[in-house]
Amino acid sequence: MKQLFIKSVRDSDTNTMGKITLENVPIPEPEEDEIRIKVAYSSFCGSDVHTLTGDLGEFEEGTKSRLPMPFGHELSGVIDKVGRKALELGYKKGDKVVANYAKYCYSCDMCRSGKENFCSNLKFCMGGMAQYACYHVTQVHKLPADYDLLSACMIEPLTIALAVAEEAEFSFGKSVAIMGAGGIGLMLVQLARMSGASVVTVFDLIKEKQELALELGADYALDSRDEGVIEKAIEYASGKYDCVIEGTGSMSAAKMALDMLTRDGRGVYYAMYGSSPILGVNLHKDFYWDQKHLSGVIMGAGLFPKALKIARRMDLKSIVQSVHPLEEHEKAYADLLSKQFARVVIKMY
Amino acid sequence: MKQLFIKSVRDSDTNTMGKITLENVPIPEPEEDEIRIKVAYSSFCGSDVHTLTGDLGEFEEGTKSRLPMPFGHELSGVIDKVGRKALELGYKKGDKVVANYAKYCYSCDMCRSGKENFCSNLKFCMGGMAQYACYHVTQVHKLPADYDLLSACMIEPLTIALAVAEEAEFSFGKSVAIMGAGGIGLMLVQLARMSGASVVTVFDLIKEKQELALELGADYALDSRDEGVIEKAIEYASGKYDCVIEGTGSMSAAKMALDMLTRDGRGVYYAMYGSSPILGVNLHKDFYWDQKHLSGVIMGAGLFPKALKIARRMDLKSIVQSVHPLEEHEKAYADLLSKQFARVVIKMY
Amino acid sequence: MKQLFIKSVRDSDTNTMGKITLENVPIPEPEEDEIRIKVAYSSFCGSDVHTLTGDLGEFEEGTKSRLPMPFGHELSGVIDKVGRKALELGYKKGDKVVANYAKYCYSCDMCRSGKENFCSNLKFCMGGMAQYACYHVTQVHKLPADYDLLSACMIEPLTIALAVAEEAEFSFGKSVAIMGAGGIGLMLVQLARMSGASVVTVFDLIKEKQELALELGADYALDSRDEGVIEKAIEYASGKYDCVIEGTGSMSAAKMALDMLTRDGRGVYYAMYGSSPILGVNLHKDFYWDQKHLSGVIMGAGLFPKALKIARRMDLKSIVQSVHPLEEHEKAYADLLSKQFARVVIKMY
Amino acid sequence: MKQLFIKSVRDSDTNTMGKITLENVPIPEPEEDEIRIKVAYSSFCGSDVHTLTGDLGEFEEGTKSRLPMPFGHELSGVIDKVGRKALELGYKKGDKVVANYAKYCYSCDMCRSGKENFCSNLKFCMGGMAQYACYHVTQVHKLPADYDLLSACMIEPLTIALAVAEEAEFSFGKSVAIMGAGGIGLMLVQLARMSGASVVTVFDLIKEKQELALELGADYALDSRDEGVIEKAIEYASGKYDCVIEGTGSMSAAKMALDMLTRDGRGVYYAMYGSSPILGVNLHKDFYWDQKHLSGVIMGAGLFPKALKIARRMDLKSIVQSVHPLEEHEKAYADLLSKQFARVVIKMY
Repeated sequence: MKQLFIKSVRDSDTNTMGKITLENVPIPEPEEDEIRIKVAYSSFCGSDVHTLTGDLGEFEEGTKSRLPMPFGHELSGVIDKVGRKALELGYKKGDKVVANYAKYCYSCDMCRSGKENFCSNLKFCMGGMAQYACYHVTQVHKLPADYDLLSACMIEPLTIALAVAEEAEFSFGKSVAIMGAGGIGLMLVQLARMSGASVVTVFDLIKEKQELALELGADYALDSRDEGVIEKAIEYASGKYDCVIEGTGSMSAAKMALDMLTRDGRGVYYAMYGSSPILGVNLHKDFYWDQKHLSGVIMGAGLFPKALKIARRMDLKSIVQSVHPLEEHEKAYADLLSKQFARVVIKMY
Repeated sequence: MKQLFIKSVRDSDTNTMGKITLENVPIPEPEEDEIRIKVAYSSFCGSDVHTLTGDLGEFEEGTKSRLPMPFGHELSGVIDKVGRKALELGYKKGDKVVANYAKYCYSCDMCRSGKENFCSNLKFCMGGMAQYACYHVTQVHKLPADYDLLSACMIEPLTIALAVAEEAEFSFGKSVAIMGAGGIGLMLVQLARMSGASVVTVFDLIKEKQELALELGADYALDSRDEGVIEKAIEYASGKYDCVIEGTGSMSAAKMALDMLTRDGRGVYYAMYGSSPILGVNLHKDFYWDQKHLSGVIMGAGLFPKALKIARRMDLKSIVQSVHPLEEHEKAYADLLSKQFARVVIKMY
Repeated sequence: MKQLFIKSVRDSDTNTMGKITLENVPIPEPEEDEIRIKVAYSSFCGSDVHTLTGDLGEFEEGTKSRLPMPFGHELSGVIDKVGRKALELGYKKGDKVVANYAKYCYSCDMCRSGKENFCSNLKFCMGGMAQYACYHVTQVHKLPADYDLLSACMIEPLTIALAVAEEAEFSFGKSVAIMGAGGIGLMLVQLARMSGASVVTVFDLIKEKQELALELGADYALDSRDEGVIEKAIEYASGKYDCVIEGTGSMSAAKMALDMLTRDGRGVYYAMYGSSPILGVNLHKDFYWDQKHLSGVIMGAGLFPKALKIARRMDLKSIVQSVHPLEEHEKAYADLLSKQFARVVIKMY
Repeated sequence: MKQLFIKSVRDSDTNTMGKITLENVPIPEPEEDEIRIKVAYSSFCGSDVHTLTGDLGEFEEGTKSRLPMPFGHELSGVIDKVGRKALELGYKKGDKVVANYAKYCYSCDMCRSGKENFCSNLKFCMGGMAQYACYHVTQVHKLPADYDLLSACMIEPLTIALAVAEEAEFSFGKSVAIMGAGGIGLMLVQLARMSGASVVTVFDLIKEKQELALELGADYALDSRDEGVIEKAIEYASGKYDCVIEGTGSMSAAKMALDMLTRDGRGVYYAMYGSSPILGVNLHKDFYWDQKHLSGVIMGAGLFPKALKIARRMDLKSIVQSVHPLEEHEKAYADLLSKQFARVVIKMY
């Protein structure tokens, strides 16, 4: 079968971008508690961009040591082969599915406390940018027969968006500012509206993404480079924001997020930042006086079933603004680096 | 000025309905911490129907002892006169406002614990079915200048709907069944959708209200008298419901609500029931094995600001299906007793 | 090895109690993802009493169909043999452990939503009343080396007590009434104090258990048969109770619990009741006006790590009021039926 | 009557400490909705130390503009005179009381959303360091007749400690580190134990306060200047801490707090810091990867009733390590500046 690998990350000396290669590898065999998926769609994650452009910050050394590296962890597909124990749990060939790339041990204290995302034995199963991929039965989630597989490859990032929305405590009447109208940002726009936000304001540098944000339910879309943009955003909401989400990975956006947050508000950072990701928080003003709440999200726990349930209420397909077949992966890569598209997806067959 | 009074409740011997009369009374003067509102619209509450039709259960004796009784507690209007202390807090003649008929003491332990709805010195300020009404400054909420006053008289019932939605823990991916598509029921339909419900099923006996429920976002609308209706509702949601709301006041609906509730689900009762409102709960099946959560709502606390913020995202006007001028109050009363209309409202000027 | 079995349940015609027998059976072999425990202590659960005395209500037919039945699900011990996959997760011979008798699939929507207690494929692994028992690695929890194994056999019931305490929302300043000073009731006394309860009142019929409750932190211990006992309990707390826990399985206690509950309070039922466990809830008074919250607990999820952490702060040993060696199991059975002891435990070696 | 005033703050040029003076002023008259308290005890708050030593950071200019300034906001006493409206609410001469120095308007959106601590019209009623003081009826909380008035002057700081404990989500099995064993720190030690903390570790520079912390329930007490103290603290808890509370106002302690916090842990800052209170948070490590939660507390809302309920379960008296009569206020001031005492209190009569 064919599989994409990250061959190199950005060479900062020559300023050469990282490289992807398509290789022929054997089709993997599922173990008895595993399931093999014939992959339909596989999406590039924002973290993949960080990997390829070398802007990895504290992950850089670890990443380099694993090259060439299978990647891809946002995928949908159809079950192709089922291990014996997975069969007993009701999985069968032909089922439409998505996979959670995180494999939990269910034997550590974190797993057994409902915090699998902090599993002590957590394994990240990359390799979704391939024609076939095997996952443990606990990682595979069945889709209803009428789900569309393109939207479905957005389910994994939707679990991140849900984790962010819950951490930010989206709820009736909250004003929400969202920095970054990428894939997850555009899901957050919809989740904010779906949770009763009174105002949703989005920031992005790309006009097309701003427009898509408005179509998907944002009340206002702004370019964060415009002069007086924070003041304008605050005026729109008749005050600072109850929830501010930062997903761009830009330190200036990270600071703006803090500045737009109202007293008792919740600021959530879910991006990867570069080499010096230090945000200065004013203990007197931000914490003591304003009682702001700051936190971050890398991923949540227990959110796939919820994501599957709400996906029908959302427009995930519009978020995928670029789809290329596997053989044209270089076009996909170019689209990815252009940063013009909310999400870039590879069609596997 | 003119004011409506409840003169009598239903006489069960002669089966005569309760009576409303329009009287001339002096315009009330606001005290220094009060505000006088020139009432624009005043809505009949479901509890008013109970009062008039005599189906008051445990409230019957108390109600009879207070006749003739001013009533009306869901109103909107414009500030007409402001007491000195209220002036200092920024209220002024001409402001559009709504009032909370509940007056809290803010001096008891409940008030000081954020549970004003359980205030030990709670006063219900009725008298909203009048051309003018005075309220303590803490009861009056300003509206933005562009709010429409007809929708605004739905703000008070919206706070009840919010209290129900929060008690039922509406959130992403929950399936919601709503018994009764009256005013609050139709708000709950919208709140369920606004909080990310995956399925919203409504029950009502009146075809027009079912249709309105569908227009306002319900996925399914059923007649609870139809054979096999519970099974059908469960089939629609692919299982029993995470949240079941009962607002009809019918004991058979109360039982149905319990039966449609899934394990770990939340059933919330916000209706008034008649003379023998005993629901049999199976401790083994409902509580021990299914771990269902049951509770009720008469009203919430701290929800007016939230209601005002989300009202713009909702369609409150469609819920008001009958509006009559004050002098034609008898038509309004007839509409009310017909139970054909989600909400019946009196236009005061 | 030797293992206890339930041979029969109560014969209601002859009023003969159920019977326990000690049998010789082969020592079980662990599979590769299993662990064999050499059992040190195994405790009788309140549900075992229901089984033996035939007061099983809706579980009766199912139980009869499985006789003779291995039982025992509250145990502590030492690891005796470890399957290959469990070895990789760090378990080794000699580790002190407790086991969760519930085996979760981690593949259904409930497990993947953090609600393993509602697992669609839940298996109850009984057989703890044996010298050896095998459990899946996900069911086995390691103890610190200095834990005492007698207290440790109380860890499983402690997870139930924790689930009840969390459902009842024990917290700073709450008044708590606890019906039944059995094993879990006495843990709840301690948990109430550990969560800052302002008043803890316990009801039991047995003088010795009342005294133990007082020693373990209760402020008041009452006999529920005494005249005016509800009034007295309410007087002690200067009002009705914020949290009422019912664990006796008596319908009169279930009703008392509802009556002692204050407005907005939480009533939690965790007992098994007999053949007609219908509690009449007054929808008007209890739910609409008083806004009480009622629910039940059979078991919780994700609570073993927490139980292990707090066990050191508690006195679990005093709760075990009767310990007999395996060969004297008939004495243990007699103690159990006498209902004089909070917990009866078998010492396995 | 006699009243203490802050006459000057620290003069940084001459390094002269701020000054307190005792003045003769008229006894204040309560308005009709006010209550006059004959003050029994009044405690110096940590913020008073900041004021006097000039380490006020962003509050400095504002404070200087109000000199000479009445102060004192942690007091207990006996009702001396009651305004007409307060009488109606059940207050009467001779009642033991405490007062909340924060006066809420109950008319802004924050007050009406249960967030009085963010009241738009919030007034701080200082002047508790006087023989008599008047407060609005909503600010006065009655004590049971058998409460001791010395402990009672700790109720206001206890509401802060409660706000911190709730923000930090103290609960069963959490490990808690507390920076600073001052008055509120020592309350937090007790609250941590009262909420089921598995480990409580306290840091302070003063040996006597460390010992008091241990007496009041801390498991470990450390000097933050000792080498390897963070490592030791982490070893004691078998890992980083679930909850870290910083109340010293030292920036190095603020950084230590962040470093000791575990993944998904909660760090709460409730101190005032000096002129450059910028804490550098690593967005990648602290927020993205570790998903830490950081926030602050200046004060809470709705916590007086709860504080009054739990005060009986706590040892507040031991926290008051220095008491002087009003005429010896200079000794109290010296004790305050020495930082040797958890709390310094003035006895008013």
